[in-house]
Parts: sequence; structure tokens; C-alpha cells
Amino acid sequence: MVTPIDPTALGFLLAENRTQPMHVGGLQLFKKPEGAGRSYVREMYEEMRSHDSTDEVAPLFLKHPTRSLRTAGQYVWEPDELFDIDHHVRHSALPKPGRVRELLDLVSRLHGTRLARERPLWEAHLIEGLRDGRVAFYTKTHHALVDGVSAMRLLATAMSSDPDQRGMPAMWAARPRSGRSSAVVDPVTLSDLPLQVVRGALAISAEAAGMPTALVTTLRRGLNNETSSLSLFAPRTIFNQPITGSRRFAAQDWPLERLRTIGKATGTTINDVVLAMCSGALRAYLLELDALPDTGLVAMVPIGLQAKQSHIASAEGGNAVGSVMVQMATELPDPRDRLSAIHASMRDGKQALASMTPVQIQAVSALGQAPAILPSLLRMQGIMRPPYNVIISNVPGSRTTQYFNGARLEGIYPLSIPINGMALNITCTSYDDKMCFGLTGCRRTVPHLQRLLGHLDDEVTALERAAGVG
Amino acid sequence: MVTPIDPTALGFLLAENRTQPMHVGGLQLFKKPEGAGRSYVREMYEEMRSHDSTDEVAPLFLKHPTRSLRTAGQYVWEPDELFDIDHHVRHSALPKPGRVRELLDLVSRLHGTRLARERPLWEAHLIEGLRDGRVAFYTKTHHALVDGVSAMRLLATAMSSDPDQRGMPAMWAARPRSGRSSAVVDPVTLSDLPLQVVRGALAISAEAAGMPTALVTTLRRGLNNETSSLSLFAPRTIFNQPITGSRRFAAQDWPLERLRTIGKATGTTINDVVLAMCSGALRAYLLELDALPDTGLVAMVPIGLQAKQSHIASAEGGNAVGSVMVQMATELPDPRDRLSAIHASMRDGKQALASMTPVQIQAVSALGQAPAILPSLLRMQGIMRPPYNVIISNVPGSRTTQYFNGARLEGIYPLSIPINGMALNITCTSYDDKMCFGLTGCRRTVPHLQRLLGHLDDEVTALERAAGVG
Repeated sequence: MVTPIDPTALGFLLAENRTQPMHVGGLQLFKKPEGAGRSYVREMYEEMRSHDSTDEVAPLFLKHPTRSLRTAGQYVWEPDELFDIDHHVRHSALPKPGRVRELLDLVSRLHGTRLARERPLWEAHLIEGLRDGRVAFYTKTHHALVDGVSAMRLLATAMSSDPDQRGMPAMWAARPRSGRSSAVVDPVTLSDLPLQVVRGALAISAEAAGMPTALVTTLRRGLNNETSSLSLFAPRTIFNQPITGSRRFAAQDWPLERLRTIGKATGTTINDVVLAMCSGALRAYLLELDALPDTGLVAMVPIGLQAKQSHIASAEGGNAVGSVMVQMATELPDPRDRLSAIHASMRDGKQALASMTPVQIQAVSALGQAPAILPSLLRMQGIMRPPYNVIISNVPGSRTTQYFNGARLEGIYPLSIPINGMALNITCTSYDDKMCFGLTGCRRTVPHLQRLLGHLDDEVTALERAAGVG
Repeated sequence: MVTPIDPTALGFLLAENRTQPMHVGGLQLFKKPEGAGRSYVREMYEEMRSHDSTDEVAPLFLKHPTRSLRTAGQYVWEPDELFDIDHHVRHSALPKPGRVRELLDLVSRLHGTRLARERPLWEAHLIEGLRDGRVAFYTKTHHALVDGVSAMRLLATAMSSDPDQRGMPAMWAARPRSGRSSAVVDPVTLSDLPLQVVRGALAISAEAAGMPTALVTTLRRGLNNETSSLSLFAPRTIFNQPITGSRRFAAQDWPLERLRTIGKATGTTINDVVLAMCSGALRAYLLELDALPDTGLVAMVPIGLQAKQSHIASAEGGNAVGSVMVQMATELPDPRDRLSAIHASMRDGKQALASMTPVQIQAVSALGQAPAILPSLLRMQGIMRPPYNVIISNVPGSRTTQYFNGARLEGIYPLSIPINGMALNITCTSYDDKMCFGLTGCRRTVPHLQRLLGHLDDEVTALERAAGVG
């Protein structure tokens, strides 16, 4: 059965090319359950790939885009009649010594290759060989199927807060509507997701993408009339260049409690602290490369909106997402000053967003939801300066410990999409008692990406000291 | 320094697309030297990647194709100013249990991804985790740089027949002209290779590609006037379909002595026996799939030509390669009958080739050297039937045991290029006392490719029995 492709999804398919793969990813780290044998990972893998018939796989994970004379040259979704689970689910291993470094190397490489369009647009890699005995699981899903938030949610739906639950299917499994006891974020079943995700979360940008005139008008207004929520006065940085196809991924987590303590002592939010960590880290990183601009970097930060605030898409029950352009204050040498400036910029941005018209919100949202489409659009219209320097997302996750068939989830790190002109993406997700950071960059444009992890760590300490809690 | 791209190399760049990557590969298996420690592979990897400055890498491995306004939109070779050895040389591992099956799975995947054009067109993967303790080394080089024969020769130049030699650089290292003691096939130094390879071996097809009219005329003649050297009456098979981008690779070796014994007892050559193995295996494979055509399959078999025979390209001292279209006799049920028919077809083909004019040889050679360019050309000219069903190459290798820094080379298996309409490629190379087979196929178009290995093995036994030597 052929189904139409949503305009936004189509945008992601058309924007994709060799140097700009359009998939999001997630890296999960699991601790094996008590009594797991030597062949635990292989058994987990065999179990995962055993559900290989098309009626055992959810429709989202069975469809692939196709176009032909029959469809008048238009892309449509079509179920893969020759579905081959072995193409999608893969078993990998790390070379010795099996440190996190070797894991990040492998995941960087896996994230840098494109998904095959003649197949459903996803891959899942079960990875053994970490010397601490943990098991890694990297999943890769095309942005035409899910956005970053939905990808995290999809992973969450396959988890349970019950360590004793067994017989749990993988995230791509078809499930009955009832019988799921412990979905994390929302009790959605997988069969609901395609509709909710595509019609809900992405509907805003779908509409926005359909009205480039209104969008560009709003952006133009932003150029002439600086507001902190839609600032287009971002400096040029090394991040805002054409990119290559290879990727570098770095990931680490910090205790939520440390961030919360800093926030309490300074009257700021955890999200402000996350942004201040990024600001300090970006400043140190760019200083090392002698590439720090005189004016502060601007980050595009997607934020959730109340349905009544957004006026749109609420009927479908999806996520309404807006974006705030945050002045990152990277030009300020003092950590406390940066945190204060970010807090103020974020507050102003949210207020501005709240007072916006639906069309303006659409425009701002499109910046967040359709980063791949926007730059080309902006270039076409002769707007050459980057509207922002870096994308920083903070995706809420589960606050309780999660399990997959008894294996304890210890961390979950999002991988996102660098694009031409936006070579670095920082996405965090809270999980359990941690804030987990995932940094995805173009390997060539963002050299020594992993150094940012050290700088992030330094910045937590600096902020603690500045807040008088270190 | 910008250098022009040879027309044939350009053809391979232009013919490349997502489902049809244009690189050849080699899989080598090494036995660790006595006394190798636990971190032997890591040390080998660190040594390999330590030569990372551009003056330590041979020009062939430094250049990448580029085109711009400056070059009037034409592709040229340009040295990679930002050469990053870590992008090219990689350390991988196999999941447990670390059988050859896991190795072939990994290599299949690595061979299915495209090389990045913003980088020099090669990758090398050092692979640990085989349960028998051996070390695997997979290399991947774009067809625009080398053909299959040259790729095998390149690997050979990095080897030594002296088990005690140490301090040997990797194949991509720049070397002085003298001081190499033990090149295998020819005492060529690497710095000679680009010229020899591109101007020598590929010159024929370069010229042929430049004269499509003569080529197509010759092919048309073949259509109307069946000769065994240029038969265009190949049946349609499952191999002659559009392909996808994913690959399956299978490899195994058999003792040369077994093949030699069969040849002696039946008055045939080792090459005839190799083709008969393929014939029997293809027959059994297609029978299982209920897809064996009534008429016999036709294999395109590249053969080396004497310089005086080819009349061309000899001035440059390169390899002149012609092709014979061999009737594989897959319709015959008896192994001995198939071997006899192949022997006769091969003999006729060689004789016909010897009596051909240079232009005809050019045309036939182009079929072998430019398989990627030809099909499109044929389609353009309205010749829709496949000129042959499968490509089977037998590349001569070293007859003595080879070593790399004391590690004994136990086998070397070639990976080649499936293309649209030609989904299976079989390439063998003799090494030491073995005949090593590498089967590369489109994962979707050639299902259960690995079954061909079992059928090849059965066929050796069947041929031995038929020849009265089993």
C-alpha cells in the first residue's frame, strides 16, 4: 500500500546528500543483568533479529521512500516487500582495549554513513566489547520518519521501569495497542507513533515549509529589528561552513544534582546551566583554536510550548515546539556573568515567543524543525549570514531507572544532524539522575570535537565555584 | 598541484552512485608472529597510523577528485591539504564468537559504503577478534585509482618473503625507489604505480571508452554473428537486474594441488577447473532458487595478453588485458561435460582473440576494463540483453609465502564491484599453495550468496570424482 509523504519528511529526503545525511541517532549504554552468560549479547542479538516477518515489524519500520513513473515521479512511502532484518539489525564489537573512546569512534563512523533508500530508513547496532562489560546499542533513524524528540521517545517506549520484566520486544516490533505496562514518557503505543509524530510534532514545520514567504518575511523583520528570540546577528564561526560527510561523536554525562545545585544557588534553571556549560566549553574550545569571535555566539534552542501558547497543532495532540535564539555570551570571561546573561536572554526569548502571533511562532519553529531546509531557503533569498551558530537541544527524558529485559539502562546519548553551515549540534537528555550530552559534529569542520567534553567538565566546576557551591 | 584525471578513471567516478560504489577491495588474513602480545593488533594499528604527514604518504593515496569553477567544472586530482590518516586507517573488531562468518559480515558492510570524495579514495581496516587468533586486513580503493589486478599488486608490494624482515611500511607509504628487496609480482616501487597503472593497464579501455562508435559496432557484429569470444547471447538470469547498494561478500580457498590434479587428469588448465567450479556452483545455486535458465550462462573472463598479441599499450609496459566470453555450460548436468565444454569454449575464445584486430580487442577489453561504463552505453544504443551473466576473474598472485613485519599472510581474497545488470562478481587469486575465491554480490539481488561457497566445495569433489582422482 502506497502512502503519501508528508511535506516536511519530503524536505528531509530532498535535503539529504552525501555530505549531509539526514538521520538522528541514539546511543544507549546497558549494564547486563545478574547472571548474564558469556554469549549474552549474541543471544540478545539473535532474539532481536528473530522477529523478521513483516507482520512482526511496525509499519514505521517497514516503509521506504520510492518514486517512479507510476507515482508520477513523486516520492511516496511503500512497504518493503523484501524486508531483510539482517540489513537493519547488526551485531558489532569494539577493538581492545574497549574503552569509551573506541565506542565513540565506532559510533561516529556508523553515524557518518547514509541509510539506503531502497530499504526502510533505520538501523540498529548492538555493540559488545566494552571493557567494563557494558553493552552499547546505537540506533539510527531517518529524520523523515522521526525528529530527535520522537526518536528519544521511540527508544523509551521499548523500555520498562521493572527490572524483572522479560520478553520485551525491540523498538521496531509491532505491538498490540493494549498490554504495554510501562511506557516512559507517554503511554503511546508504537502503532500510534507514525501519525502522532508526523502529523503532530512535524505539522508546524510542514505548514511553515509550505509558506516560505511568510517565513522569510518574519526572518527579514528579525534582521532589521533585533529581538532576542529571533536574532539574526550571529557572528561567523568555524561551525558555520560547508561540511563533509564524516562525523565525530562525543558523549558524557554529569549528575543532575550538580546542575540543580548551581541553578538553585544562582536563581537559574537547569536548562540555563546546561547552556552556560555549553557557552563556557565553546569559548574555551574556540580560544584554543584562536577562533573566538568578538561578539557572542547565538544558539538556537528548541523549547516546548503549551498548546494554548502555540495555538496550533494542539488538536492532533502532538508536540508544539518553538525556538529561542539565545545569546550565549561567549565573549564574557566570567562563568557567572555568562550564566546570568544566558538566563536573561532565555527569559526574554520565552516572553517574546509567548507574545508572538501564530505565524511568527511557525516561522521560529520552522527554524528548529527544519534546519536542513531553512539554510538553502535563506541563501536563496540572499540572507547570507548564519541566523545562529549552533543548535543546542535539551530533550526531557525519564527520571526513573529503565530496563530492557533486565538490562539496566545507564545512559542515553542523542546523535543529531550537522548540516552545511551548522557543523556542530549539541543535544542533551536527562535520564535517571544524570544529564547526558551528545555532541555530533562534522569530523573535518569541527576538529578535536572530543575536547569539548573536557571543557564542559571544567565549566561545571567553574560554575560551582562561581555559585559558591563547589 | 592539480593533475588531470584519466578518461577511464573519470568514467568510474561518473558511473558511481549510491547503489553502485566503484571501489575494489582486498581481504588479507595474517597469522601473528611468534611472541606477539595481547596488544599486537593495536600496536600494528598505531604504527600504521603514525605515518600521517603528507610527505610520508604516496601521492596515489593523497589525491582526491575535485571540480570547481576554477577547473571549469571538470574533475581534476588535487592533493588533500587536510589529510587525516584517522579517516583512512581504522581499527575494528568482530563480535563473539569471532568466526569467519562474523568477519565476512563486517567486510560485506564495509564494502557496501561509498568512499568520500572530499578525501583520498581509500580506506584500510585492521580487524581483530577472530577466535583463531588471526588478524584480518581489509583495504578498499577506488577503481579510479586502481583496477582489481593493480589493487592485488599494490597489496603485494607491501609484503616480503622474508619472515624476519621488520620495519615494513604499509602499502600507502611513500618509499624511495631503491631499497625494496622483495616485491612479489614485479619489482615496481609504489611511486611508479600511478603512471604504470593508469597509463598502462587502463589505457586500452581509456581509448575504447573514447571510441564508443567502434566499440558498439563490434558489439553489434557480435549480436548478429555469434563467436564464442564475443557472444551476446547470454540468457537473462537473476544476476542481470538492477542492484541495491548493500553487499554480501563470501570467501574461501582450496588447495591448488587439488585443482592441478583435476586439470592434469582431464587435460585442462587450472583456470578451466576454476571456471568449472563456478559453473557447477552457479548451476546448483540457481537450481535451488528454481532460477536456472535453459541455456548456459555466459561468463566474461579477463585474460592477460602478450604484448605482441595485443599490439597496443605495450610501449608503456603495462598489462594488456583482453576478455573471453566463456560458455559456462550450466545447462549440462554432468560435471565432466561442463569442464570439457568450458575448456573448448575458452580455447576457441583465446584463438579468436589472437586473430582479432586491435580495434576488436579494444572493444572486448573495454568490456572487461570498463564494466561500469559499458552497460549504460549498451542501453543507450538499444542493446538490452546482457552481453554476459557474470564476471569471473583469476588474478595471478605470489607462489611463495609472504610476510608483513613477521606476520604470515595466510590468504588473500579479492572484493570487486557488482554493477547494475551484473550483480555477482567472482574473483580468484592464487597465493602460496591455495586458490583463494572472493565472491562479491548485491545483498538483495543475490540472496544467500554464501551458499555458493558450499556449492564450490561440492563441485571440487564432484570434479575429482569425475576425473577419477577423488
